[in-house]
Amino acid sequence: MFFLTPVLVAVLCILVVWIFKNADRNIQRKKGEPGARTKSRAWVDEDLRDSTYLHQAEEDADEWQESEENVEHIPFSHTRYPEKEMTKRSQEFYELLNKRRSVRFISNEQIPMEVIDNVIKAAGTAPSGAHTEPWTFVVVKDPDVKHEIRKIVEEEEEINYMKRMGHRWVTDLKKLRTNWIKDYLDSAPVLILIFKQVHGFAANGKKTVHYYNEISVSIACGILLAALQVHKGVTAQHETSGHPICSRVMEEAV
Amino acid sequence: MFFLTPVLVAVLCILVVWIFKNADRNIQRKKGEPGARTKSRAWVDEDLRDSTYLHQAEEDADEWQESEENVEHIPFSHTRYPEKEMTKRSQEFYELLNKRRSVRFISNEQIPMEVIDNVIKAAGTAPSGAHTEPWTFVVVKDPDVKHEIRKIVEEEEEINYMKRMGHRWVTDLKKLRTNWIKDYLDSAPVLILIFKQVHGFAANGKKTVHYYNEISVSIACGILLAALQVHKGVTAQHETSGHPICSRVMEEAV
Repeated sequence: MFFLTPVLVAVLCILVVWIFKNADRNIQRKKGEPGARTKSRAWVDEDLRDSTYLHQAEEDADEWQESEENVEHIPFSHTRYPEKEMTKRSQEFYELLNKRRSVRFISNEQIPMEVIDNVIKAAGTAPSGAHTEPWTFVVVKDPDVKHEIRKIVEEEEEINYMKRMGHRWVTDLKKLRTNWIKDYLDSAPVLILIFKQVHGFAANGKKTVHYYNEISVSIACGILLAALQVHKGVTAQHETSGHPICSRVMEEAV
Repeated sequence: MFFLTPVLVAVLCILVVWIFKNADRNIQRKKGEPGARTKSRAWVDEDLRDSTYLHQAEEDADEWQESEENVEHIPFSHTRYPEKEMTKRSQEFYELLNKRRSVRFISNEQIPMEVIDNVIKAAGTAPSGAHTEPWTFVVVKDPDVKHEIRKIVEEEEEINYMKRMGHRWVTDLKKLRTNWIKDYLDSAPVLILIFKQVHGFAANGKKTVHYYNEISVSIACGILLAALQVHKGVTAQHETSGHPICSRVMEEAV
C-alpha cells in the first residue's frame, strides 16, 4: 500500500466501540433524597440497573468473612525523589507522551510478545471500582482472525457513517478525513482488543456487579497507551521504523 | 491523625463521581439497521441524545473549510529501540506502575507545582473522540476550598452508603472497609479535580458534541495516574515520605 512506509506508523488511538446488546438503559430513579442535592445521582446506578443484582443482595449479605475485619492497614512506602529530580522526571514523561499520535497507517513490523505482555500487565495495574478489574485483553496475531475483525469493524463503521451516527457526526469528522476503511487492522502485526466485563461471576456462579466498569476499563486503556509510548524513545530524529500496535476498545458481548 | 504518618501515603485512586444533572438518558433507538447486527449500537448515541445537536447539524454542514481537504498526511516518526531495550523499558514501566496503590491516608507534604503542571499536561495528551479534548483539570490548594469539597463529597458519599447505592453495594465494599469519611481531602496539599465536558461551544456560541466524552476523560485519568507514578522511583526500600495528590473524577455541572 502506498502510504504504508516505515515512517507513516504509530499507535492507533481512535476508539471505535460496539455494543452487542441493547440492555434497557432506563434508570429507575430513586426518590426522596434529602436536601438541595436531590438531583445528584451516582453513575453506579447504571451498573445496578439489572434488578437481579438487587434480589441477590439480601442472601449475599453474610458471605463476607468477618475475620477480615481485624486485618491491619499496610503502610505504603515508595521512593520520593528530590524536588529537582521529581520535576525533571515529570517533564520528560510529559515530553515523551506528547510525541504520541493517533495514526491511520500502521507498520507491519513485528514486536516482541514480551513487550505486548508487559504493556498489558501495566494496564492491568489500573484502579477499578471495588477492585473488580472488569477488563479482558485479547491479543490477536493470526492474519485470518485480524481480517475477520476488520470486516466486522468496517461493517459497523459503515453503518455509523451512513446512518447510525447522523449528519452531525459525519460533518464533525469531515475535517479529520476518516472513513470506515480500516487497512491497519490487516497490516498491524498485533491487535489488542480490550473488552469491558459488565458483570462478573462469584465462586457460586452468581452474577457480581462491576461498578463503574466502563470508566475502569478506559483508565486501563490510558495506562496502556502510556505503556506503549514508554518503550519508544524520547527523541524522534533517527527512527527507522514504526509501531505496529493497534488498540481498540470494544464491549464484551454478554 | 494517628494513621497519617509519612509512610501511610500515596495516590488515591478510588473514583467517586457525582452527576449534578438528571439528563434524560432514554435513548431513541434507531430502527431498520440492516442484517444480523441489528442489535448493535454505538455509544455515541448517548452523546447525541440532546436533540438540539441534531437540529443544528443541517446548518453547520458547510462550516468546514473545503481547502483543508488537500492537506497532505504528515509522516509520523519516532525512535524504535532495539528489541532488547524495548523489552527492558516495558518491563521497568510495568514494575513501576505495579507499585501504585490506592490509599486512604495521604501525606500533607508539599509537591512542586511544576510537577503538577507536567502531570496534567501529560494527561492532556490523551486521545479523545474527534479530538474534542473534553476535559477540565482544576488544581485546588486552598485549605478552605479543599474543606468545602470534602463536605460535598462526604455528603454525597453518605447518601451512597445509606440509601442511594443499595444493600448490595455496601456489602461488596464491606471487605474494603471504606466509608464516607474522607480525611485525605483536607490533608492532601493538592487536589486535582477532573471534570468531563459533556459538550463544548463553537466560536459562534453553538453547542458542539463531545463524542465519547466519558471514555476520553477516563483515558486521560489513566495517563494522569501513570504520570503521577513516574516521578516516583522504581525502588520502594528507602523512602521518607509520600505522595500528596488525590485524583478524583467528577462530572462537570452544565
